[in-house]
Amino acid sequence: MLVIGEKVNVINTKIGQAMKDRDPGPVLAMAQAQVDAGANMLDINIGQAKDGPERMAWLVQTIQDAMDVRCCLDSMNPAAIEAGLKVHKGTALINSTNGLPEKMAAYLPLAAQYDADIIGLTMMNGIPRDANERAAIAVDIMTNAMSYGVDVERIYFDPLILPVKVAQEQALQVFEAIKLFRQLNDPPLKTVVGLSNTSNGLTGPIKTLMDSTMLSSLMALGLDAAIMDPTDKELMNTVKTVDVFNGNILYADSYLD
Amino acid sequence: MLVIGEKVNVINTKIGQAMKDRDPGPVLAMAQAQVDAGANMLDINIGQAKDGPERMAWLVQTIQDAMDVRCCLDSMNPAAIEAGLKVHKGTALINSTNGLPEKMAAYLPLAAQYDADIIGLTMMNGIPRDANERAAIAVDIMTNAMSYGVDVERIYFDPLILPVKVAQEQALQVFEAIKLFRQLNDPPLKTVVGLSNTSNGLTGPIKTLMDSTMLSSLMALGLDAAIMDPTDKELMNTVKTVDVFNGNILYADSYLD
Repeated sequence: MLVIGEKVNVINTKIGQAMKDRDPGPVLAMAQAQVDAGANMLDINIGQAKDGPERMAWLVQTIQDAMDVRCCLDSMNPAAIEAGLKVHKGTALINSTNGLPEKMAAYLPLAAQYDADIIGLTMMNGIPRDANERAAIAVDIMTNAMSYGVDVERIYFDPLILPVKVAQEQALQVFEAIKLFRQLNDPPLKTVVGLSNTSNGLTGPIKTLMDSTMLSSLMALGLDAAIMDPTDKELMNTVKTVDVFNGNILYADSYLD
Repeated sequence: MLVIGEKVNVINTKIGQAMKDRDPGPVLAMAQAQVDAGANMLDINIGQAKDGPERMAWLVQTIQDAMDVRCCLDSMNPAAIEAGLKVHKGTALINSTNGLPEKMAAYLPLAAQYDADIIGLTMMNGIPRDANERAAIAVDIMTNAMSYGVDVERIYFDPLILPVKVAQEQALQVFEAIKLFRQLNDPPLKTVVGLSNTSNGLTGPIKTLMDSTMLSSLMALGLDAAIMDPTDKELMNTVKTVDVFNGNILYADSYLD
């Protein structure tokens, strides 16, 4: 499974300040910690910055000059995404389009032009009611992707995990959506989730328990990627254990080390 | 999900001695601890006892006189199973038949006669090679059940979890088998596993990690029941968390308490 580290994120005060100051130290430390912990890719969330394009380009270059890792460019500003794509080495992942026509018109052409993968969040303006509504939006994103010249296999469909604390009934809809998405194409559509949404509003052992239980459940259903905290050792132990079950890594008594 | 407590088991030295001595104290303490921890049913494994029928009958009566819980009668001796069925209150679960004709001839008629549920272990003499072989045996058990007058919905099919430490490649086959079993009938066939086989030969945190990851994975695929250790708090927390995701219990910040 593709583990996308979530921690180069403007909501972290230290990282946010470093982004503003163009101070590479804290950014590289956070990036390296995630790569060392097993992240295969790093999400770079720059927030609503006025200097979005310059900020994103600086972050991608700073990180990729220091380590061999792909980036997931996370911004509401298409110009910032494009600035990141221009300097990114290897295949970038765009985070994200959703099902709104204006969003797809802004983001899907970038994926085509820069040969990038892209996350398709299966929502429009509001929260989708159920798995069927998510699947309908997924189909719409598929159709638009084709017309913009983006191969369906380049899209990671995100069923939108919501905090269980406030929207418990949506958890089951996410399970059902993953199953539905995978039936919409052959080979199955790729899927991704923002895992820590599960336990949003919670801390401590219950947070790790909910996130790791959600993760192993979704992996059993065929999840391809997760934006998550790779420095949470228990979460990564869950990833490794499912990888042992699936035969992706060979069992050894020391497989967690 | 049906949580079947595994700990009234002859392999536990104290319990084994208490079974031999007909000493209710240790048996009832172990039974009560499991019920208090959330077990919905108790497996009673009497081993290869010479006094099998008397032992099983004594255990069922002793436990059911003290608490309101159903029993899963676990013995290689059909006479011991029948002795338990004769005194059991409510619907018992027979553990188990497999796909061998002589086994089915011994156990399926007991299920029919005493209106009991029964576990169908999808193996013959050796270990099944893959999910398809397990499904073929499941079909054979279904066919025989019908001819012996046992409703297919009374059978819990067990795909046979093997220790990951020694048979890693079988874990994936168990996942695939659960999916296949569920497609063999509408409503889907019921499934059960002996969960702790997963981590057989391991102890400590890695044991709980493997068992809880296996459990949430299988529950995502639709598992109906597990023979497991309900006094392992982390395992039961996993069960409760999946039950929250599935909407079987209402979320509250205190849902683990």
